[in-house]
Amino acid sequence: MASAVNTQIVLKHRPDGMPRADNFDIVESPIPRPNAGEVFVRTIYLSVDPYMRGLLWERPPRGKPVHPGEVMIGEGVGEVVFSGDPRLREGAIVRGNFGWQKYAIAKPETVHRVDSDITPMSTALGVLGMPGLTGHHGIRQVARPLAGETVVVSGAAGAVGSVAGQIAKIDGCRVVGICGTDAKCAHLVRELGFDASINYRSQPIDSALESVCPSGIDAIFDNVGGDILEAMLRHINLHARIALCGAISQYHTLEPDLVLPHSRLLHRRRACMQGFLVHDYAEHATAAMTDLKNWVKTSRLIYRESITNGLEHTPAAFEGLFHGTNFGKQLIRVSPESV
Amino acid sequence: MASAVNTQIVLKHRPDGMPRADNFDIVESPIPRPNAGEVFVRTIYLSVDPYMRGLLWERPPRGKPVHPGEVMIGEGVGEVVFSGDPRLREGAIVRGNFGWQKYAIAKPETVHRVDSDITPMSTALGVLGMPGLTGHHGIRQVARPLAGETVVVSGAAGAVGSVAGQIAKIDGCRVVGICGTDAKCAHLVRELGFDASINYRSQPIDSALESVCPSGIDAIFDNVGGDILEAMLRHINLHARIALCGAISQYHTLEPDLVLPHSRLLHRRRACMQGFLVHDYAEHATAAMTDLKNWVKTSRLIYRESITNGLEHTPAAFEGLFHGTNFGKQLIRVSPESV
Repeated sequence: MASAVNTQIVLKHRPDGMPRADNFDIVESPIPRPNAGEVFVRTIYLSVDPYMRGLLWERPPRGKPVHPGEVMIGEGVGEVVFSGDPRLREGAIVRGNFGWQKYAIAKPETVHRVDSDITPMSTALGVLGMPGLTGHHGIRQVARPLAGETVVVSGAAGAVGSVAGQIAKIDGCRVVGICGTDAKCAHLVRELGFDASINYRSQPIDSALESVCPSGIDAIFDNVGGDILEAMLRHINLHARIALCGAISQYHTLEPDLVLPHSRLLHRRRACMQGFLVHDYAEHATAAMTDLKNWVKTSRLIYRESITNGLEHTPAAFEGLFHGTNFGKQLIRVSPESV
Repeated sequence: MASAVNTQIVLKHRPDGMPRADNFDIVESPIPRPNAGEVFVRTIYLSVDPYMRGLLWERPPRGKPVHPGEVMIGEGVGEVVFSGDPRLREGAIVRGNFGWQKYAIAKPETVHRVDSDITPMSTALGVLGMPGLTGHHGIRQVARPLAGETVVVSGAAGAVGSVAGQIAKIDGCRVVGICGTDAKCAHLVRELGFDASINYRSQPIDSALESVCPSGIDAIFDNVGGDILEAMLRHINLHARIALCGAISQYHTLEPDLVLPHSRLLHRRRACMQGFLVHDYAEHATAAMTDLKNWVKTSRLIYRESITNGLEHTPAAFEGLFHGTNFGKQLIRVSPESV
């Protein structure tokens, strides 16, 4: 083993509102020892995702809480250094919930081999992992836009939104992305082929939507919730479908602003609003992954990663997610791909 | 023709809030004269429905407005007295939007023959008409409850709700109905076979729902909106489906109470909320009507009508809908079935 100590990032205290880097502590601890049958993994990449904010509540709206003093939960890609299970050879690249730490012990049934055609391996946490599948299921199973329809994606430059928007383009839709910088706006249109983009920080959202969606909105893929969702809803057409994937603007509060009942609008427009999680469509995952791999290989699906070097920067990268500092999938490189 | 004058009910002035009988005027006018190809109909039954409140706004949220001085819009069943169209013989019983009046002129393409197996003919406006189909589509196409799931229906003793709840029973669900009198509550359980009922006027709704839905709510068929919808939503399970059929508690206001965003709950519970109208599922109407007729014939589907005699009582019956004075389908008998 490369080092005699493990470095871990633990929750220091629960955030009060938006998460901050100083909600976490970096601690050193002895290298963990696997029990019989367990696997010892060296973390290579860690994923930081908006949904993790929810796990920092004492009683999360969904998922199990992380308590102060505990290692922060998080998915990663790593290398099997020692294996107590004959099905996982040493040196294998695996994906699992290793937490924010250099070394992790895992039960073999919670560890998944990263296929050799998932390359670079970091994409197992992004376009060819949970975020990619989320975008695929959200468009194909939930929002279900038809060719020619207008689709609006919020958080469109993020790991999930960028996949969702590009799949809607592949499916023949007119696609508008909402994001928070001019550089992201330009990226959506020039590199990802979106039809239009809106910088919600610099443009009045309602008039911007009106101008780029002159025939209204047929499907929404929402990653942000709050005011941007309200604005998109004001423009939906009859029979619109709204896929609720995330609500990054809302995860930090237990007391969101009150709004006109969404039921009222859904009733009037005979529209459908649905929350979902990637696991809800597990039966479609294999087929969806085949699509994603093919599209990445043929460059129909472009992805972008924000890779921060060093486990110690994980809390700051996590904080940055909520301010839109990432551009595409936010990852931490904890250790080199090969040592 | 039976009489030299026509009696009509016209909108006097738009209601300010809840509709009242005195928003309407009864007027007499000359018998209308059909143009070539048109049909002259004697109204027998008129349907009064909650959705009609929406048409009284200057700019209705859906549908075309009724303006002061105009005959009130409304579906009815009548007899063809004179036909300018060879496909509609005189004496035929037909259904159409005849308005609140004794005699109506209609274009033949807007008039539908009432099949001879729809008996009594009043059911063409209820269990074997639009309300019956609405209940069928709302359960089978929108709420889609599985056998064993818990379904809650609001406005459960009404024309649509009573059908929706009974179909959910036919489909093997546990069904709870919410209504506003003890007599309706008893009817739901004793005659319609609901598993439980709640009188929202006399029982605290949250604790009542908790006690009769100990495993939570899997599907909602909502006819009322407002506080009752909010209460039902507080009890939904993961992957719940909410069919928004009507919002009778809200039709009278343009400024509903603000609420926590429904999107928040739908996201957390990965649930689906959908507004619909009977016409959205027109492709299923024939099969659904066959079901409804069979179930009525075999008494698996029980219906109840509140029939008020005399066109002049239509405004009061309409007002009564919003206070729950009807019990089952509210109809007006304008003239005898045969003369």
